[in-house]
Amino acid sequence: MKKVIHYPNEWVMEEASFDSRYIQKFESTMAQGNGYLEARNTLEERYKKSKPGLFVSGMFNQFSSHEVTELVNFPDVFLTEISLNKELVNLESGKILSYSRQMNFKNGESVRSVVWKSAQGIELKLMFRRFVSMHDKHVIVQQVRIDSCESGELEILSGIDAQITNSGSQHFEEGEKRYFDKKYLQLFTQTTQTHLPVSVTCGQTMNHLFDRKAIMKRRQIFEKFSGTIQANEPIIFEKYISIYTGRDQEFDSKKEEWYLRKQPILEVQKNVDMGYEQLMAASEDSWNQIWQKAPIEIKTPAIKDKLLLNFARYHIHAMAPVQDNRMNIGAKGMTGEGYKGHTFWDTEIFLLPYFSYNYPESAKHLIEFRLNSLQAAEQNAKSNGYDGAQYPWEAAWLTDGEVTPEFGEIDIVTGEPTPILTGKLEHHVTGDVVFGVSQYITISQDSEFEKMIFPMVWSCAKFWCTRVEWNDHKNRYDILDVIGPDEYKEHVNNNAYTNYLAKYTIDRSIALYAKYKESLSEEEQGWLEKMQQVSQALYLPVPDEQSILPQDDDYLTKTIIDLAPYHQAKQVGTIFHDYNLEEVNKIQVSKQADVLLLMLLFSNRFTKQELMNNWDYYYPKTLHDSSLSMCVHCNYALLLDKTVLAYELFKKTFEIDLGDTNMFSSDEGIHSASMGGIWQNVVLGFGGLAITTKGISISPKLPKEWEELSYTFSYGGKKIKVHVFSEQIVLEKNEDSEIPLFVNGKKVILKENVTIAY
Amino acid sequence: MKKVIHYPNEWVMEEASFDSRYIQKFESTMAQGNGYLEARNTLEERYKKSKPGLFVSGMFNQFSSHEVTELVNFPDVFLTEISLNKELVNLESGKILSYSRQMNFKNGESVRSVVWKSAQGIELKLMFRRFVSMHDKHVIVQQVRIDSCESGELEILSGIDAQITNSGSQHFEEGEKRYFDKKYLQLFTQTTQTHLPVSVTCGQTMNHLFDRKAIMKRRQIFEKFSGTIQANEPIIFEKYISIYTGRDQEFDSKKEEWYLRKQPILEVQKNVDMGYEQLMAASEDSWNQIWQKAPIEIKTPAIKDKLLLNFARYHIHAMAPVQDNRMNIGAKGMTGEGYKGHTFWDTEIFLLPYFSYNYPESAKHLIEFRLNSLQAAEQNAKSNGYDGAQYPWEAAWLTDGEVTPEFGEIDIVTGEPTPILTGKLEHHVTGDVVFGVSQYITISQDSEFEKMIFPMVWSCAKFWCTRVEWNDHKNRYDILDVIGPDEYKEHVNNNAYTNYLAKYTIDRSIALYAKYKESLSEEEQGWLEKMQQVSQALYLPVPDEQSILPQDDDYLTKTIIDLAPYHQAKQVGTIFHDYNLEEVNKIQVSKQADVLLLMLLFSNRFTKQELMNNWDYYYPKTLHDSSLSMCVHCNYALLLDKTVLAYELFKKTFEIDLGDTNMFSSDEGIHSASMGGIWQNVVLGFGGLAITTKGISISPKLPKEWEELSYTFSYGGKKIKVHVFSEQIVLEKNEDSEIPLFVNGKKVILKENVTIAY
Repeated sequence: MKKVIHYPNEWVMEEASFDSRYIQKFESTMAQGNGYLEARNTLEERYKKSKPGLFVSGMFNQFSSHEVTELVNFPDVFLTEISLNKELVNLESGKILSYSRQMNFKNGESVRSVVWKSAQGIELKLMFRRFVSMHDKHVIVQQVRIDSCESGELEILSGIDAQITNSGSQHFEEGEKRYFDKKYLQLFTQTTQTHLPVSVTCGQTMNHLFDRKAIMKRRQIFEKFSGTIQANEPIIFEKYISIYTGRDQEFDSKKEEWYLRKQPILEVQKNVDMGYEQLMAASEDSWNQIWQKAPIEIKTPAIKDKLLLNFARYHIHAMAPVQDNRMNIGAKGMTGEGYKGHTFWDTEIFLLPYFSYNYPESAKHLIEFRLNSLQAAEQNAKSNGYDGAQYPWEAAWLTDGEVTPEFGEIDIVTGEPTPILTGKLEHHVTGDVVFGVSQYITISQDSEFEKMIFPMVWSCAKFWCTRVEWNDHKNRYDILDVIGPDEYKEHVNNNAYTNYLAKYTIDRSIALYAKYKESLSEEEQGWLEKMQQVSQALYLPVPDEQSILPQDDDYLTKTIIDLAPYHQAKQVGTIFHDYNLEEVNKIQVSKQADVLLLMLLFSNRFTKQELMNNWDYYYPKTLHDSSLSMCVHCNYALLLDKTVLAYELFKKTFEIDLGDTNMFSSDEGIHSASMGGIWQNVVLGFGGLAITTKGISISPKLPKEWEELSYTFSYGGKKIKVHVFSEQIVLEKNEDSEIPLFVNGKKVILKENVTIAY
Repeated sequence: MKKVIHYPNEWVMEEASFDSRYIQKFESTMAQGNGYLEARNTLEERYKKSKPGLFVSGMFNQFSSHEVTELVNFPDVFLTEISLNKELVNLESGKILSYSRQMNFKNGESVRSVVWKSAQGIELKLMFRRFVSMHDKHVIVQQVRIDSCESGELEILSGIDAQITNSGSQHFEEGEKRYFDKKYLQLFTQTTQTHLPVSVTCGQTMNHLFDRKAIMKRRQIFEKFSGTIQANEPIIFEKYISIYTGRDQEFDSKKEEWYLRKQPILEVQKNVDMGYEQLMAASEDSWNQIWQKAPIEIKTPAIKDKLLLNFARYHIHAMAPVQDNRMNIGAKGMTGEGYKGHTFWDTEIFLLPYFSYNYPESAKHLIEFRLNSLQAAEQNAKSNGYDGAQYPWEAAWLTDGEVTPEFGEIDIVTGEPTPILTGKLEHHVTGDVVFGVSQYITISQDSEFEKMIFPMVWSCAKFWCTRVEWNDHKNRYDILDVIGPDEYKEHVNNNAYTNYLAKYTIDRSIALYAKYKESLSEEEQGWLEKMQQVSQALYLPVPDEQSILPQDDDYLTKTIIDLAPYHQAKQVGTIFHDYNLEEVNKIQVSKQADVLLLMLLFSNRFTKQELMNNWDYYYPKTLHDSSLSMCVHCNYALLLDKTVLAYELFKKTFEIDLGDTNMFSSDEGIHSASMGGIWQNVVLGFGGLAITTKGISISPKLPKEWEELSYTFSYGGKKIKVHVFSEQIVLEKNEDSEIPLFVNGKKVILKENVTIAY
């Protein structure tokens, strides 16, 4: 049987044969975006399993008070029904003579070539091209080329379809449909609860004069083109789309009429004049600027490794709304409805480092999102009975506070939906935010920004000071009743990860206090004492006699079972086929890295033996049922010099989205944290880069399959380029000043380009 | 090419070959219902053009203040995904070896038999059966039988899918999903604005022990059955569904928990035990009771004539919520989203006679709907500046008043949506309601009910007395700025139909006043004088020197164009491909019967010459762009003794829904007024029955293709059976008393069964 996915080169993923069961895989992995908007790569013709998705960053709406706010699915603009002699082009009927869809992650263009024989026996050559412009963030362009082996009556139906919902929840009013100059379609609507106005404008062109008629149905406005296609005289149909909303930074309600209605028409007119190729070239150019700003290259015959990195980087830029500090990255980016477009700790622990090391301005915007939602975090803490700022487990609007849904999948034992407790108990995010921010400060050396974020760190520390509970018996502070990164354990006490992050937060706060205390009122300064006291007396679990750091107060006493069947499963979460969450709670099984993530983030606080023993203990008990797990284990394995194993784990991250071992894992969107994790594996893992308060350290561990790895990073605004070879490292610098750094533990002052042997 | 539709016998319509372009035709025409609920006949496996629809009478909801209230589309319960060795059963792939879906309009069951060869080469025999129980109005049952020519891994996914919307507008909350005893699925939800609670419960069974797993997704709860099918050992999968709502007559909010949650589970359990055949037999029995109550039979070799009548009668009973006087019939019944489930004048002028002549209790409930919404009609009049009761052009909830949407299809000239003015201007409905009610009283001779409806008639007359405007110049009352039945003419003055119906209303009111004036307050009695005055001075257009009754003040002066292309078109509304509504307004062209309907309803007020000349004038100018047109013309032709032409027109009503000349005309639902019209053609037209204040008159005009037509009717509670042959009439009576009647104009006193020669 023909393989469905091919990987022709380091920039291209190919759907090499058509199987309608898998179309959501490609909709997600081939999604196209520019940070402002992102569109799933839904086919022009539709199939039962098609799941169209078009999202604009920060466009949230709450369907009703019974649901949480979510990123709204925009009207579909890709549907293009083609029929020849009244027979609809549909790859499930007739015969596919050849098929290939290639997504180019370098320039963001997808190209699909199909040779199809209709049931009537007519052979059609079809080519579909499409991109979301990286150059002009509001623009999407689509091209369809049709070659027929014989003449016939051709019809093309295409336009704007606003019957689309978020899996049944409709977030838009029916809106106003307009047809201008018998050429331009425009839908003007608004979200039902947040009342954000939206316009979708579309100009459609053909290279032959066809009869053209507007068709307006409920929530739909289409044009139908009808005419004769001649044998071997290709028809080229193009569609120029512009999307604007009332949430755009440029939006000014006083100029709404212009901004949302007139200007998009002019833009579409202009784009029609420019044409597909010119607009595509501009977009490609913008992508190239992104790549050139921070080039990373792996020299290896293992194309899939290079592709994996490029895939990850492409998706980070396609999905991250770094242009706007009122928004943040969703757990599925904007590639699907999964996790409702909400932002998790994934940003700070998994994705932010990519930006901090390479695109500091973008990193800053992502952090400013947290800064801008400080008030909501403080309100959230207050409503939960705490002081300070408690960041929500799931975040959407700046002012929303907690937006985690309350129920999830069905419980196989009770038949009732499982309550989702993360929003109530998974508090470590308030530490993660401070960790990410601090890491950015360390890398950027941006003391002005440090001063700006001090109130946020201070407020997070206050939260922890009220979240802790005094244990009279043990003479210490505990943190009780939480969920740690391992979400298979609910209502645990003293989760090590959480406690360490809490102490980290408080200590950062005390350190910054010394610098910026004058910015605080006297009353606020009064918190210092409490912080010092909690910092000193907060219980931090320590390795036991076998050097095992207990994940929480009870984990090590729980039942141990044979996890082999779940390790071998192709899907995640298969343990729930046999146990419900309550039962899983009683087993020594972890969803993902928990203690190991803690030890990776704070590796200098643990001995090599401790690092080793905890790996041996926790690794076999971890099912990697979260996409956040494999990349952590990869870099942890490198701490232990297990380069071969690390490389194996790295290759497993390929399967999370890009691979073909699970064709349904990406249905609801790609895994955005994993994208950051993949970059961390390459640069911070194999590339060995770390910037800590002690400075830059580079200790690479190249897999033997790689001849060279080169990457760049910025430190304190200075750019350094690193080339790692199997036996030497070459460092290049762009700036004048001398940069001190540690290479494999040895101090080097980088005055000029140097080559250092291993 | 194989024909898509066959008509095997007088009760059965057959989809004889599968073409996914036409599936909505069959979804609508093969819809199954029992007056309480109705379901489109959506296929178990789904195609792009599938449009699932399940509606429960009176369940209205308004998506937002920008849309009007509409009958909500319920969660889908028919989706059944079958896959063999991971290949989905999908008739667009693989090969169809044989296909037949038959809908039996006698017992309401649909049976689909398919022999299909999968792409893998496995031959499957599939049989799908389904009915909505006429015996227990909350129950739907589905059966799937699968025979395989070889063994394989079979999966069946089926359950409740609440991602369904009304073409994009979601009316339900996400709701609660439950799985009881690992056997019963239940969705408990409510409408978003009317807050009506709803439960959909479903029990699924199989004749072999398969692995069974609940799958819960957003707004979806399914079970997946997995196991091995053996060659020639058929798998039988059954699904028992129960639907209850907070709008049911039996609903008591104090017992909600029982009524909506527990009781349905018990009912499903009971039904599972009874099994498909027994439940189907009970439903069939209930259908037979309906048929036996008012048998109508045509003896003819023309099967399609008999089928047409049965099709019409079946749909009337499937869609009419006659069990509940808080609801009425939608313009598409409950067979689709068209016209949003709203009630129009279609009920009183086209459908009510069927019930008045045959099922008086049902007719009474339909009238009580108007009675129960009198207050809203009075409020509606008031808000438009009138006194009395103004019935809304489109009605939904009893208390809603006018619910006509404000915009319709796109205007081809301006590119803007066309405003819908019917809700503002089409006022004749307030006359139609009184006409229908009065006709019922005449037929039923129910003077107690007459007294009950007097306040309604009185209030409608008051409306007309304030709606008219005094014309000082002509010394008369005019009715200005209306839309008549011909909706291609907006803002017209003195539409003849409207003025006659207004006068009729006032005259009925004055007549009833004489009988029931004591029920009025003194102040109310004061209106009598005004009514008498308006009745005398209201302008009724009269035939001109050519005997032409002007449709309105200007119609006869408008441009006359060649309408041949539009008469020949297969679709309706093709004139709008060339003209917009403003332009059509200036042409002597009518959408449907207007003057001719008036002259049919009041035929005794016009001379034969007038009837003839107006036919000759208006018939060629009428495009029949409404399904309400053809049936009126058929009966009008019979007034003129044009029996051959009438029969031709009757046969054209076949094409409105049941025929295959327009495969898309029924997409949004069947045309309910046409169903009533078909019965009127058979019984009131060819059968020649009329009951007026002068008594019963029977003047049949049998088409030569019919050997015999027999029908029954009730008059004053007495049942009479009529057999019409080509040369004689046989009358049978069931009651003791003597019944006077006119047969072909000659008075007969029916003492016993008689035979009368022509």
